[in-house]
Amino acid sequence: MKDEVVALIEQRKYKSLFDLLDVMNPVDLSLLMAELNREDMLKVFRLLPKDKAADVFAYLQPDDQEKLITSLTDSELENVIAELFLDDTVDLVSEMPATIVRRILKTTDPHQRKLINEILQYPDDSAGSLMTIEFVDLRGNMTVDAAIEKIRRDAIDKETIYTCYVLDDTRHLIGIVTVKDLLIAKGDTVLSEIMQTNIISAHTLDDKEDVAKTFDKYHFLALPVVDSENRLVGIVTIDDAMDVLQEENAEDFEIMAAVNPSDDTYFKTSVFKHAKNRIVWLTVLMFSSMLSGAIINHFDAAFTAYPILVSFMTMISGTGGNSGSQSSTLVIRGMATDEIKGRDYFRVAWKEFRVALICAVALGLMNGLRVFVQYHDFRLALVIFLTLICTVVFSKLLGCSLPMLAKKIHVDPAIMATPFISTIVDACSMFLYFTIATGILHIAA
Amino acid sequence: MKDEVVALIEQRKYKSLFDLLDVMNPVDLSLLMAELNREDMLKVFRLLPKDKAADVFAYLQPDDQEKLITSLTDSELENVIAELFLDDTVDLVSEMPATIVRRILKTTDPHQRKLINEILQYPDDSAGSLMTIEFVDLRGNMTVDAAIEKIRRDAIDKETIYTCYVLDDTRHLIGIVTVKDLLIAKGDTVLSEIMQTNIISAHTLDDKEDVAKTFDKYHFLALPVVDSENRLVGIVTIDDAMDVLQEENAEDFEIMAAVNPSDDTYFKTSVFKHAKNRIVWLTVLMFSSMLSGAIINHFDAAFTAYPILVSFMTMISGTGGNSGSQSSTLVIRGMATDEIKGRDYFRVAWKEFRVALICAVALGLMNGLRVFVQYHDFRLALVIFLTLICTVVFSKLLGCSLPMLAKKIHVDPAIMATPFISTIVDACSMFLYFTIATGILHIAA
Repeated sequence: MKDEVVALIEQRKYKSLFDLLDVMNPVDLSLLMAELNREDMLKVFRLLPKDKAADVFAYLQPDDQEKLITSLTDSELENVIAELFLDDTVDLVSEMPATIVRRILKTTDPHQRKLINEILQYPDDSAGSLMTIEFVDLRGNMTVDAAIEKIRRDAIDKETIYTCYVLDDTRHLIGIVTVKDLLIAKGDTVLSEIMQTNIISAHTLDDKEDVAKTFDKYHFLALPVVDSENRLVGIVTIDDAMDVLQEENAEDFEIMAAVNPSDDTYFKTSVFKHAKNRIVWLTVLMFSSMLSGAIINHFDAAFTAYPILVSFMTMISGTGGNSGSQSSTLVIRGMATDEIKGRDYFRVAWKEFRVALICAVALGLMNGLRVFVQYHDFRLALVIFLTLICTVVFSKLLGCSLPMLAKKIHVDPAIMATPFISTIVDACSMFLYFTIATGILHIAA
Repeated sequence: MKDEVVALIEQRKYKSLFDLLDVMNPVDLSLLMAELNREDMLKVFRLLPKDKAADVFAYLQPDDQEKLITSLTDSELENVIAELFLDDTVDLVSEMPATIVRRILKTTDPHQRKLINEILQYPDDSAGSLMTIEFVDLRGNMTVDAAIEKIRRDAIDKETIYTCYVLDDTRHLIGIVTVKDLLIAKGDTVLSEIMQTNIISAHTLDDKEDVAKTFDKYHFLALPVVDSENRLVGIVTIDDAMDVLQEENAEDFEIMAAVNPSDDTYFKTSVFKHAKNRIVWLTVLMFSSMLSGAIINHFDAAFTAYPILVSFMTMISGTGGNSGSQSSTLVIRGMATDEIKGRDYFRVAWKEFRVALICAVALGLMNGLRVFVQYHDFRLALVIFLTLICTVVFSKLLGCSLPMLAKKIHVDPAIMATPFISTIVDACSMFLYFTIATGILHIAA
């Protein structure tokens, strides 16, 4: 695609280029433009009709938006900003450097500037920062026909029209009607008769993750956002909610792998940034593992007398780590989807204890038997059998407890995933292992 | 909520109960019903208006649906099935035991039964299994007014009406118009003038995960599904696409924690099922770690001569495991979001190599220095320094390579996450460690 476009530009075949661009989807156009150099990008952009150009612009990454804006004339920029939905303008203003922000704000009128500033003041992770203020508002005494007429007039400037909001004189939200409701109803029906009055809404300061989960739960296309006096100030649309859900998932994956979460994608993050995001946790975990070193050191009499003990160390700590991370991951996920709540602790622990016992006995028997067959040493086999049972049960209980404890003390439970659990399990499993070994093998510690 | 409802039932205050239920959202009603016993559930269900009852029914979990159906009379069941959207009926038929399926199919007419059977034949993970066949179809020579008139007539039976499909005489999809397009356009415009003809669609046999990603990319509300002759057979709606994205994420989390993915939630899965889902991978990983045992055993001369070496083993294998799982997780995520493609291998490996080098030198210096200060043994400090550098670089290269290799040979890359990487890194890091140690400390292996 890129090569075709570049060739058409070089050959100055702008009519063919126009026809090619005309049928393309805005998302695909934005991906195409991101691959072009500044000059070609500008040429492609100038060939797009005004409303489509704004659409494509909204989908560009911030660095490409910046590249483009610096090449646009003031009047071209004004056209783009005029066509953008307000929430996209707000996103743009919050991402661009100060000089560009000044150019953008110069193109807006005082009323728009005031709105932009209001939205910018909501915290980054709030429903307010996510919302758009371009929605269709109706009155309860309107007829269906009048409502449809108003929607037809207003639709072009609204991001979504399919859910409409019925307000009273003081802009309190009193009902919701969908365009589907309107189309099904008779034309002379009054809205107050068909509107839904049991309204699920978000507050401007609600956490945007909770807002996204509300979409997931109720299958909404849009959610109204109200202020502290229950006045409608904006709506969140499903596409933004989906983005939040995907971001939160990405963040959980990163935290669970002991990487500091980053807003940028893999390739957009520089080598130094990658290293910085990873090195903190690696260092913390490395020095935490000095504890297991100290425990092992304490038992050096055991493995000097019985060197074969050393060869089982990684198997034991590995099995413990894996058992623990299975439990912690399932509990972290259960809490993320709201299935597991704080009060369920004993229910979870009792379940994990029984699961652990089954896994532990099976693993202990398999490996104990293997050791007995290989080394013909019953006491060594017994040590491995008992150590695996204790380690697996302990790891699974720790794995389910730490994420729930983290949530209790308002730390992100995802931190208590594999790497963190493994480090603690390493130390504890080594202590269990050598304690059991010195006891059964009669070695003086 | 539950207590209030139970109290109203006990006091036979059905009018108050009706008023309470009337304003509740269908999703909340389904969650409420799931908490009730069979008898109360039935009473609540019978108080709901027909169309809302079907809505609530569609949101119930399969075991609650089964509980309810067995209590319903045949004519009640017929009412429910008649109001259900076809994709929900298909889901129901695929989840219920044979006796109930027979009762359900008895309530449907031959045409519906044929449609249900057709959808049931699509593979579980295909777009076909996900789609609904209730969409609005229009003709290209219709005017906007005629189209709106048709939508008003058909809307009540359609799951979504906001995206409409323009078909030719042989049901080929030739264009798309949204209700917003229709409302903005003049009433006498012909559809073929305003419809979008650059159509992004899915094929019935496309992977449903790819379908969900298309929604995420283009911010659609619905996606058309066509057969091999490009005839429109159904549409996928955004709520189902969101469910697929969330399921895929949950599955990735489970696989990455070495748990066999399960369709049920944490509490709904029995202890034995949990144990079964986890024990296979624990066993595989436990026996794989025999390799590191064998390597360690091979070097027993080293640690009998230099017992302090044993105390660094868990720190080294742990740091290697963590470094590797950081890389593998980021690469797995990058591939899941389509940022990283197979052809990017050398780009990824070169990036990881540089990131690894920075992390490795930092960690090696910190720990080498610590060892030198604590033990005043320069050669031991050098062993730790060099081992950490080699282990971290090796682990990160392995961590980014294995998921990409997995994808190449059509294995789910998520399997190559923490537990799998750790087990391989354990063995390799021990080999590196003792090889370096025997070399520098001049111990005969």
